[in-house]
Amino acid sequence: MTHPAQIPDHPLDLVLTRTIAASPHDLFRCWTEPELIRQWFVPKPWSVARAEVDLRPGGQSLIVMRDPDGNEMPNPGVYLEVVPDRRLVFTDAYTAGWVPSKKPFMTGIISFEPEGEHTRYTARVRHWTAETKAEHEKMGFETGWGICADQLAALAKTL
Amino acid sequence: MTHPAQIPDHPLDLVLTRTIAASPHDLFRCWTEPELIRQWFVPKPWSVARAEVDLRPGGQSLIVMRDPDGNEMPNPGVYLEVVPDRRLVFTDAYTAGWVPSKKPFMTGIISFEPEGEHTRYTARVRHWTAETKAEHEKMGFETGWGICADQLAALAKTL
Repeated sequence: MTHPAQIPDHPLDLVLTRTIAASPHDLFRCWTEPELIRQWFVPKPWSVARAEVDLRPGGQSLIVMRDPDGNEMPNPGVYLEVVPDRRLVFTDAYTAGWVPSKKPFMTGIISFEPEGEHTRYTARVRHWTAETKAEHEKMGFETGWGICADQLAALAKTL
Repeated sequence: MTHPAQIPDHPLDLVLTRTIAASPHDLFRCWTEPELIRQWFVPKPWSVARAEVDLRPGGQSLIVMRDPDGNEMPNPGVYLEVVPDRRLVFTDAYTAGWVPSKKPFMTGIISFEPEGEHTRYTARVRHWTAETKAEHEKMGFETGWGICADQLAALAKTL
């Protein structure tokens, strides 16, 4: 079996999808290069204090967010599947070295599909339970990921 | 970062380790070729009714066990990391397509380290909670995986 073109919907998914005027390659770069991640990954006035990317299955993904008061919140995880310019899958269920996290919360499945000179961008966030999905909705998934997608689109156009 | 040579111990691990008189390559084959999996993977008189292997990160691992009365028990999961002849990582926290399973139970980290003409074989089973680790111990991890390791060693010698 090769990589399926699309990931089917699942009832435990929260999904944001956009057509963005940038190439899959540039959007993939924004998701995987620390210096680019810092520029779009959190809604301003929050910021990214640090981003570490070990881009391989089991490799660490660490994004440290900083709130407007300067408090830092680390978001450690690992990459699960890396298909350059097409798909990136990661989770917080593990940290580097396949160490189990305290509470598996989500799996991110980010797809970049060419659509003419644009890209169909899909950020799919999948949960293990209906409770954590509802919790994520209440935390403002739609608004937060929407703002970030705008920031991502604006950055990708400059590359 | 390259693949670390060893996975450090974790308090939520159950570990079986053996020196086996076979090559890492032959042991890796026993773990990844369906026809070989069927010959050693469950303690007799249980058997493997079916084994499906899609050997890539995110690819399906399905082993259907059959008890002496003919009842079948499917064990679906996915591969997380595949390092030919050296390491195999899989979990039941997902099924194919990164679909979350009902209850993430374990991660298997199987290492094959050359030791002269033999192999240091380590089967590390890692849990998310102390409760599931204790549950796995009660289910007879040590005895069950020990019997299987004997069956694996016997099979690998014939290859």
